[in-house]
Amino acid sequence: MNRTTETPVTVVGLGLMGRALAGAFLKAGHPTTVWNRTPSKAGPLVAEGARPAATAGDALRAGPLTIICLTDYPAVRELLGAHENALDGTTLINLTSGDSAQARDTACWAGQRGARYLDGAIMAVPPAIGTAEAEILLSGPRPDFEAHRPALGALGTVTHLGADHGLASLYDVAGLAMMWSVLNGWLQGTALVGTAGVDAATYAPFARRIAALVAEWLPGYAEQIDSGSFPAEVSALETDARAMSHLIEESEAVGVDAGLPRLFKAMADRAIAAGHGGEQYPVLIEEFTTPRAATDDHRR
Amino acid sequence: MNRTTETPVTVVGLGLMGRALAGAFLKAGHPTTVWNRTPSKAGPLVAEGARPAATAGDALRAGPLTIICLTDYPAVRELLGAHENALDGTTLINLTSGDSAQARDTACWAGQRGARYLDGAIMAVPPAIGTAEAEILLSGPRPDFEAHRPALGALGTVTHLGADHGLASLYDVAGLAMMWSVLNGWLQGTALVGTAGVDAATYAPFARRIAALVAEWLPGYAEQIDSGSFPAEVSALETDARAMSHLIEESEAVGVDAGLPRLFKAMADRAIAAGHGGEQYPVLIEEFTTPRAATDDHRR
Ligand SMILES: NC(=O)c1ccc[n+]([C@@H]2O[C@H](COP(=O)([O-])OP(=O)(O)OC[C@H]3O[C@@H](n4cnc5c(N)ncnc54)[C@H](OP(=O)(O)O)[C@@H]3O)[C@@H](O)[C@H]2O)c1
Ligand SMILES: NC(=O)c1ccc[n+]([C@@H]2O[C@H](COP(=O)([O-])OP(=O)(O)OC[C@H]3O[C@@H](n4cnc5c(N)ncnc54)[C@H](OP(=O)(O)O)[C@@H]3O)[C@@H](O)[C@H]2O)c1
Repeated sequence: MNRTTETPVTVVGLGLMGRALAGAFLKAGHPTTVWNRTPSKAGPLVAEGARPAATAGDALRAGPLTIICLTDYPAVRELLGAHENALDGTTLINLTSGDSAQARDTACWAGQRGARYLDGAIMAVPPAIGTAEAEILLSGPRPDFEAHRPALGALGTVTHLGADHGLASLYDVAGLAMMWSVLNGWLQGTALVGTAGVDAATYAPFARRIAALVAEWLPGYAEQIDSGSFPAEVSALETDARAMSHLIEESEAVGVDAGLPRLFKAMADRAIAAGHGGEQYPVLIEEFTTPRAATDDHRR
Repeated sequence: MNRTTETPVTVVGLGLMGRALAGAFLKAGHPTTVWNRTPSKAGPLVAEGARPAATAGDALRAGPLTIICLTDYPAVRELLGAHENALDGTTLINLTSGDSAQARDTACWAGQRGARYLDGAIMAVPPAIGTAEAEILLSGPRPDFEAHRPALGALGTVTHLGADHGLASLYDVAGLAMMWSVLNGWLQGTALVGTAGVDAATYAPFARRIAALVAEWLPGYAEQIDSGSFPAEVSALETDARAMSHLIEESEAVGVDAGLPRLFKAMADRAIAAGHGGEQYPVLIEEFTTPRAATDDHRR
């Protein structure tokens, strides 16, 4: 009696990621149309119940929602450009990786051809698709997101970031910046304690705990940035800079690379030189929002 | 009937931190002897029940356990050197900040004068002392730690790291490296999404979630380091490097400083040049354990 009929979806691009996306839709019970430039890649999905479209145009016209996931934006524009007349009235969700300008341009281009358009970024590897672990970030008009939210839920944890089509790719690279930051901070510490014979497995739980602890400070620190006021409630940037010198000296003394702490210190020193030594760490946001040439990275 | 008598402790050095330490011991019911070069700083503690020692030598002889917390190691050595004959048979716990070499030297020096010695690092601000939030790292012989563990528990969350006296300061700077890494990764992301009008408070929960997520990977990644084998189970370093280029280009395109991602990429590129492009991220440990001159930080 309560049998639900899942909405039909189309997946264009059946590379590693596209196949994972189509597979997750099939598994969740969505009638799924698929198309790939090299048709043979559709085989296993068709065996699982997917319907192969003969042309990309047919795929775009097959239903109300098309997910597209190709190598890059030029490939997307080339393919869609060859089927412009199939775009009117469809909703396109582009999960191809790209930058915010490409996302905004493509949104504009697709809109001019009558398509609704959401841009997305996938923060997951193909095997995670279809599980809550797969983070899928979307940006574009909220009503277009809401209309397809139930279907998108089959892919993972889907978050709508806002109307600006560039947001998904900005959050994506911002998340990567955090990922490499945590990994490099951990490697710096692993190398330091390693000089005293501590193995990486012994040190890792400590690093994990500190990372999780500092992560908890971020919402509070964010308030300082939004208010533009950085009182040194916990410690002053000058104190941080002195401790950074200590980290640099200790790294050098025990034979660990100090490039990462030297960069931290160079940024802090520039903020101190600009008069912010008595303020709290988040005042450094000004250094991040003021681009410098690559050759100047280590100048004060 | 079950009235417990807490063990007596002595605190030498009543700066901001020393006063917090003595205050926590008093609060936990320990008979507490205090001494400071400038005697007036003992006043409020004495009013709370602390016993003032007339000289540093008297303080060192007052009981079985002395906590010392001065500005730096030279100050510690100067003070203890003037009272060498009071060291025999006492246990000294030095919570002064310093580097691993200073800790090991001071341990050796104190041991030669008959003292048991633990070196420590305080990862907390004075108001947190006496709460579980205050992380106190100790290193030195485990039996000396075990003997005084109950008293030390009054100060916060106390962890014994191992027998090498240098460990507390190495973990301390390693933890700081993680702290600034998380903060800078967050600032990079805050600046990126800020270019699309997203405020810091809106972005912070996302950054917090990514940091906590990546922190969970560390124990698994640590196994790769300890085994010296880095199969690309999730992604290859080459893939990371391409995504780093993307982060650099996006930062530059929207007007955000790219110094941090440029450093990440320079390190990854060096590892790729050394033949590790097909391995997983933790293979970068070799870059961290191979020191480079400051002038080479951005060379490949
Ligand atoms: N794999 C991951 O871990 C991962 C994670 C997050 C995001 N992503 C992103 O997801 C997207 C796809 O990645 P992937 O791993 O699936 O890559 P892939 O395995 O290399 O697949 C690329 C897909 O794009 C198609 N394609 C390329 N150029 C085309 C063109 N001009 N016209 C039509 N089709 C074209 C390919 O068709 P053919 O089969 O005919 O070559 C194939 O279906 C990329 O933007 C990637 O950055 C991937
Ligand atoms: N405050 C923090 O947030 C914090 C956090 C973690 C670790 N620490 C570490 O804790 C230690 C103490 O910090 P603090 O904040 O308490 O510093 P502080 O307020 O500046 O106090 C310094 C203490 O050292 C004494 N001192 C300095 N030179 C001396 C000498 N030659 N002989 C005898 N006593 C001497 C001072 O005595 P006078 O009163 O006579 O000058 C004072 O008691 C430092 O190593 C610091 O890095 C502090």
